[in-house]
Amino acid sequence: MNPLSKLIFELSKLPGIGEKSATRLAYYILNQESEYAESLAAALVSAKQKLKYCEECFNFSEHEKCEICEDSKRDHNQICLVERPSDVTPIEKTGTYRGVYHVLHGLLSPLDGIGPEDVKIKELLLRLKAREVSEVILVLNPSVEGEATGMYLSRLLKPIGIRVSQVAYGIPFGGTIEFTDRQTLGKALENRTEMYK
Amino acid sequence: MNPLSKLIFELSKLPGIGEKSATRLAYYILNQESEYAESLAAALVSAKQKLKYCEECFNFSEHEKCEICEDSKRDHNQICLVERPSDVTPIEKTGTYRGVYHVLHGLLSPLDGIGPEDVKIKELLLRLKAREVSEVILVLNPSVEGEATGMYLSRLLKPIGIRVSQVAYGIPFGGTIEFTDRQTLGKALENRTEMYK
Repeated sequence: MNPLSKLIFELSKLPGIGEKSATRLAYYILNQESEYAESLAAALVSAKQKLKYCEECFNFSEHEKCEICEDSKRDHNQICLVERPSDVTPIEKTGTYRGVYHVLHGLLSPLDGIGPEDVKIKELLLRLKAREVSEVILVLNPSVEGEATGMYLSRLLKPIGIRVSQVAYGIPFGGTIEFTDRQTLGKALENRTEMYK
Repeated sequence: MNPLSKLIFELSKLPGIGEKSATRLAYYILNQESEYAESLAAALVSAKQKLKYCEECFNFSEHEKCEICEDSKRDHNQICLVERPSDVTPIEKTGTYRGVYHVLHGLLSPLDGIGPEDVKIKELLLRLKAREVSEVILVLNPSVEGEATGMYLSRLLKPIGIRVSQVAYGIPFGGTIEFTDRQTLGKALENRTEMYK
């Protein structure tokens, strides 16, 4: 494969990028100074090499613990539970949340054979054992899997005396947390409601 | 800037990729095995390093001359004139053209101060001097600049005994050569018409 075809081939593996878009991007890159291709290449390798999972919350982190988990000014009694690392940034951008996070890396989906052991629930329980936590706030995509996961966690955590709440469903059903605007998401966090048992 | 922000920043420089798309792509890449980030990075650097302009036709090439210019089975008496390297691939895909190419790297645009010396017209004239050429086929985007360039070249080349033709305008005005489907483009090549003087 020649270098141009190879570049188009690699770019077209990206989500939402078909062969035509990949071709357009490849020619764009070739028309830029070498510095751009080199700095994009370096950013790719560096991000993938340096970012690991935080050993506490499982968000991406350059160090063993992420900046949020290391921050003593954050409220470590409050854990916000999200499905994916990409859900953390929009919540941080609301500027209203001062607690910490826990990234599940998936949602329960019995139909797809995804059970509690396939997501970071065991790791959450270890955190809850290791340190006093008063509240777990569920910020999960409003879907069947999101609701199933919320229900499961509520039933698991309430008996051990932890308040379990979920964001207000101002978020439209079928939408995604990742791309919700900060106002809607900030409001939804503020209006979180206590989970029924 | 942390590695994730840096990757998002570099990706968002690509055309049509805003901050949200760049974020989505970055997280996608982080969720893949390291091999993907590495092979995309290698493809970027390799394409930019290895591809130069063919000294004959000015398309991208790994060597001094591109594969098409080096191919003795192609008809070197026929030169297809295009604006950009990315216009060559769709013409090749029609499978009907057996001549060679010349990439202008721009179109004449007096209003923007782009004259004949700013595109590869001098280089075209040198090719026409060095070797017998019977026909120059214009395959330029149907725009004011495309027509101005065609007119200029027709007036320049016809007096020296070279047939100048242009693709049939089956291509819709306002469209681009790069993304025209192969059937339309093949037909347009077949039905090319002799330029008026």
